[in-house]
Formats: sequence, C-alpha cells, structure tokens
Amino acid sequence: MTGTRSDLRYSSLKGFAMNLKELFAHFIPQIEAEMRACLSSPDPALAAYYGMMRYHLGWTDEHFAPAQVNSGKRIRPMLCVLACASASAGGAQSGAQAIPAAAGIELLHNFSLIHDDVEDNSPTRRGRPALWTLWGVPQAINSGDGMLTIAHVAIDRLRLHGVPPERVLDVHGIFDGACLSLTHGQYLDISFESRQHVSVDEYLHMIAGKTSALIGACTAIGATMAGSDAVTHYETFGRELGLAFQIQDDILGIWGDEALTGKSAESDMATRKKSLPAVYALERSERLRALYAAPEVDVPSAIAEMDAVGARTFAEQAAREHHERAMESLRASDASGDAGQALFELAESLLGRAA
Amino acid sequence: MTGTRSDLRYSSLKGFAMNLKELFAHFIPQIEAEMRACLSSPDPALAAYYGMMRYHLGWTDEHFAPAQVNSGKRIRPMLCVLACASASAGGAQSGAQAIPAAAGIELLHNFSLIHDDVEDNSPTRRGRPALWTLWGVPQAINSGDGMLTIAHVAIDRLRLHGVPPERVLDVHGIFDGACLSLTHGQYLDISFESRQHVSVDEYLHMIAGKTSALIGACTAIGATMAGSDAVTHYETFGRELGLAFQIQDDILGIWGDEALTGKSAESDMATRKKSLPAVYALERSERLRALYAAPEVDVPSAIAEMDAVGARTFAEQAAREHHERAMESLRASDASGDAGQALFELAESLLGRAA
Repeated sequence: MTGTRSDLRYSSLKGFAMNLKELFAHFIPQIEAEMRACLSSPDPALAAYYGMMRYHLGWTDEHFAPAQVNSGKRIRPMLCVLACASASAGGAQSGAQAIPAAAGIELLHNFSLIHDDVEDNSPTRRGRPALWTLWGVPQAINSGDGMLTIAHVAIDRLRLHGVPPERVLDVHGIFDGACLSLTHGQYLDISFESRQHVSVDEYLHMIAGKTSALIGACTAIGATMAGSDAVTHYETFGRELGLAFQIQDDILGIWGDEALTGKSAESDMATRKKSLPAVYALERSERLRALYAAPEVDVPSAIAEMDAVGARTFAEQAAREHHERAMESLRASDASGDAGQALFELAESLLGRAA
Repeated sequence: MTGTRSDLRYSSLKGFAMNLKELFAHFIPQIEAEMRACLSSPDPALAAYYGMMRYHLGWTDEHFAPAQVNSGKRIRPMLCVLACASASAGGAQSGAQAIPAAAGIELLHNFSLIHDDVEDNSPTRRGRPALWTLWGVPQAINSGDGMLTIAHVAIDRLRLHGVPPERVLDVHGIFDGACLSLTHGQYLDISFESRQHVSVDEYLHMIAGKTSALIGACTAIGATMAGSDAVTHYETFGRELGLAFQIQDDILGIWGDEALTGKSAESDMATRKKSLPAVYALERSERLRALYAAPEVDVPSAIAEMDAVGARTFAEQAAREHHERAMESLRASDASGDAGQALFELAESLLGRAA
C-alpha cells in the first residue's frame, strides 16, 4: 500500500519553462498563506495540537520551532489555481479566486498522508519522522481528523471571499466526492494487502480512487471557481493525468534509475507492492508468483520475469494512453492563456520525467 | 479517555411523556432512512467497506446480514429535529426539514466513536466487538474517515431537498465548527492520559469540546434550519445540556447504582478515568493521589476519599448549574408547541435520571 499516494515523489521543477516557474513563484506563497490562516491555533491550550499539524506540513520542527523543510511540491493546489486561471477570461491573475479551495485540497491531501502513514505503519514522511512516530497513533489519528475538518473549513472560507453560495456548494460537492473516493481507494488498497490475487482491473479501480479522483477534483474545482462550462473536460484531464502519473510512478519504482529516483527498486519489490506491472505479471507468471511467495523476494529475478512477460511494455502503454487522454481533454477544455500553456507544460513535465 | 463521549449510555426512554415518545416514533424512522440512503454502497466492489460502517451503525451483524441490535438512542439527531420543529411556526411536522442535517449529525457522532475506540484501544461498543477488533486498525481508521465524509455528504444533500444555498452554508459552518471542537476535545483528552495533574478548568475545557459542542450544534442547526432568530439560545441550550449530561455521567460512573447503570464504579476508577469528581478530588487530596499512584487503585478507599473532600457535592452542584442554564436558554428561545414541550421533557429526562 505504500507509495501509491506518493506525494508525486519523483517530480522535479527542473525543466519547466519560465512561465510555469513564475506562476509557481506567484501562487505558492498565497496558497501557503491561506493554509497558515486556516491552521492558526485559536487557543494556547491547543498550541501543540496545531503544532503537530504544522509539523506535518513542513512548517516547524518537532519542537514546533519554525523550519524550512521539504513539504512536497504543492502540485495539487497549483493544478486547481491554474485550471481556474486557464478557464477564466481574465488571465493568469484570476486564478487567485481559487486559492482558498486550493488550500483546502492540499490540506485534504495531507490529511490522507497522516492517516496513510499510520495505516501502513510507515515511519517516515518526506525524510522526517511521520507524525505518529513522534506523538503516537491516537494523536496521529485525531490530528488527521483535524486536518480533514480544517480542509472543509478552508472550503467554507470561500464564502468570506465573496464567492456566490451556489458556487461554494458546487465546490463542497466535488470536494466531498473526491474525499469519499479517496477512502474507497484506500479501502481497496488495504484489502489487497491480505489477498494473493489482485486483477489489473481491480488495481486500476483502486488508483482511480486513491490517486486520480483528487487530482480530477483539483482541476474540476478550479474550473468551477471560474464558472466554466468545461468542468467535465478539466476533471477528465486531472483524472487521466493522475492515472498516468501513478502508473509512471509504478514503473519508476521498479525500473527507475536509483540515482535519479533516490530509491532502489528493492523497496517496492521487497514489500511485494501491488503496482500495475506487478499485478499484470503476477496474473501471467507462475514463476513470479513463486518468487513472491518466497520468504524474501529475489529482486533481480523478479524484475527479469516481469520484463519477460511484457509487464513493463504493458504499463508504459497504459501510462501513454492515459497521458494522451489527459492531453485530449485539456485541448477540449479550450485551456488558454499563460495558465493554459502552463497546464500543458506541467502535465508534460510530470509525465515526461525519467525519474 | 474512555466514556466521556459515552453515547448517552445511561439514558432511557422510560418515563418520557407520551408526546415525546410519539415524536421519537415519528421521526426516528425518517432519520434512519436518510442515514441508510447516505450509506448505500455505490459499487459491489465496495460492499464490505459500506458493510463495516453499516455494522457499526447497528444495521448488520459482522457477516453483513441484517441485524436489529442496540444502535444508540439517536438523541442527537432528535435534538436537531425537535429544535427545528420548536423554532418553526409550523408545528412538530416542520421538524422534517432538518432530517438530512440530523442524519449528518448522527453520522458525525458515529465517526467519532469508530476512531475513539481505536484511540482508546477499547474492544467493545454497545455490547458488540468494536469495528477495529473485527477488521483491524487500518480499516477502522479508514472507515471512520469514510463516515466523517458521508456525514458531510448528508449536509450537502440538504440542497437536493430544496433548502436555500445560504442556509446550507450556514449549516456547513456550524457542522464544521462542531467537528473541529470534537477534535480539540479529543486532543486534550488523549494528552491528559500522559499527565499526572489536570485541573478542573482543563477538564471542563475538554468536555466542552468533546461532548458539549456537538450537542450545541444539534440544536443550533435545528434552529438554523427553521430560519429562527434564536439560534444562539438554542445552541446554548444544547451546550449546557451536554455539559450537565457529561458531568452527571461522571457522577454515575462512580456513585451510580450498578444494577441500573450496567457498569460498576470499578471500571472508571480502575482505569483512573479523569472525570470531574476525580480531577476535583485529585487537586485537593494527597491521599487520593497516592491511591491513584498505586499499581491497582483501592476503589472503595478512593471513593470514600472523593466523598470526604466534597467531590460529589461539587460535581452535583456543577451539573445542577449547567442544567439550570440549559433550561434558562430553552425558555429564552421561546421554544413552543409540542416539540418545544418535548425538548423540555427530553432535557429533564436526561438529567433527572438516577442511572
């Protein structure tokens, strides 16, 4: 179950055109400021409660002193803001109206990471101790609940920013739907752990909930905030991008260059992670099933067997198809202006990566 | 931490006037139907996921076959519907408009119970195995997240019922505020576990979040749904009722008649539960602190010491004061009609209980 909601771990801003970099530099501080406003402690007795959540978000160290650490790339809220700007007539600046919703999306994503780490018994997150390892499972569960609630409060705050009530409710609806899909995907992922056989279709169903629904919600909410008629195209763009991204992540987890991914194939293979190449190959290869059934997986032999049954080719083809569908939907949405161009670049950059 | 959000465990409908019983009989099936509509599985692959949540709600056994078991008294959603009816000009029937919100409140309450049981390592709930003991901690955390999300979807559904968008957003705001308060209270409760000393004020702060905020939200949302000007009075009624109820629960946990409460004082004392009488007495009695520091608490001596320092008198006085404030607020709200009368009766019944 580890890694499927992987915080876009291999992504890099290197290679982005200046335009996209500038848009990140423009919007990210505003998104961070909105998130910080949502997470200011209302009460000194709750300072450590909000402190745990602020630690998880990369703003403090474990003593709650300010820190500047890897807090993820904030790709999801940027997709929301860029979709809003791209779908507006008013140019890139008009993405600003989506910032409270974008902050809510990033908080929702981070809630899921806090709970995932507990559920996966995963001790680290972004190179630091996971919340639960520092403050225990009960506080980690409750802090995740708090962050999920604050994500909803972030959506409520759209109203303070003068967004019409009907539109705020539309955003609530998309947001809650994505959150429910996250829990569906997570249910399937956990249930796969105790199963010998998982089909390719079941696997795709799982990542549609766990990874792709939230990315679809990012772009759908952005377009909704712009009052666009093309919400469905934007949503499909996000969903397909999410699927392509997850499958590429799966491929890199096995065949990626360790020097670039920072992670050896050992970990995904040794934990018998149910990735797309793995479930494809396990369906087809008695030999691979035997290798997986051993007390320790013989990683080089397992990779060779996956290659032999065409698992890499299959997964690369699937990633390419979802990528193409994403790009078709983005073209169909009439994405335009600097922000539209930036969405094309961001999608190409995320999917063209070698690591 | 066990027991403070106790599902109103000692309450009984025995002794209610016919009017109140009739209102329960009228509205509870409608609330249950709305909850069931929110929890119908959208997909055969997710049947067991929704099954776990339906089990927790008392609708099925652990094999997901229909069951009729204790599912709690549904006091919270009834407070919501009765507050709506009482604040409306249209009589008791007008409480029906609050049913989707009332269903959301009961789902929110049950989300908190699923996670509480994991956080407290508490193996049973309402006389059956807790969700986590049957399906494991990861699935229980995720099912709680799902129920919290579905609680929000229940609020979203108000829109389907034709409620004006501004009012739906008002309900979202109250709902999210109560949910955040729940997590505040739970944070304090968990943190008290690892502390020697907790003051009376800190304890009251904790139950204000963990118990009273949600009951205040029940009545505030009911009055909001009715378009009432007296939302604040209704909310104060609920909050004060919640505090009085929790303190009375604390008293019964130590001095209650085991034959009536179904639970001996042993459990609250043996686990060193930080109840109001306990924190009051621990602040004042060196002897009680020594009894609590022993490997096993000498329960009869500890109870005698609590009596000696006036902890019971103090707690009874506090319960009475909160009860009186609740009743004052209810009078100030101009609660009227059958439903208003029922709110008075329900409050008296909950607080007048000997067990």
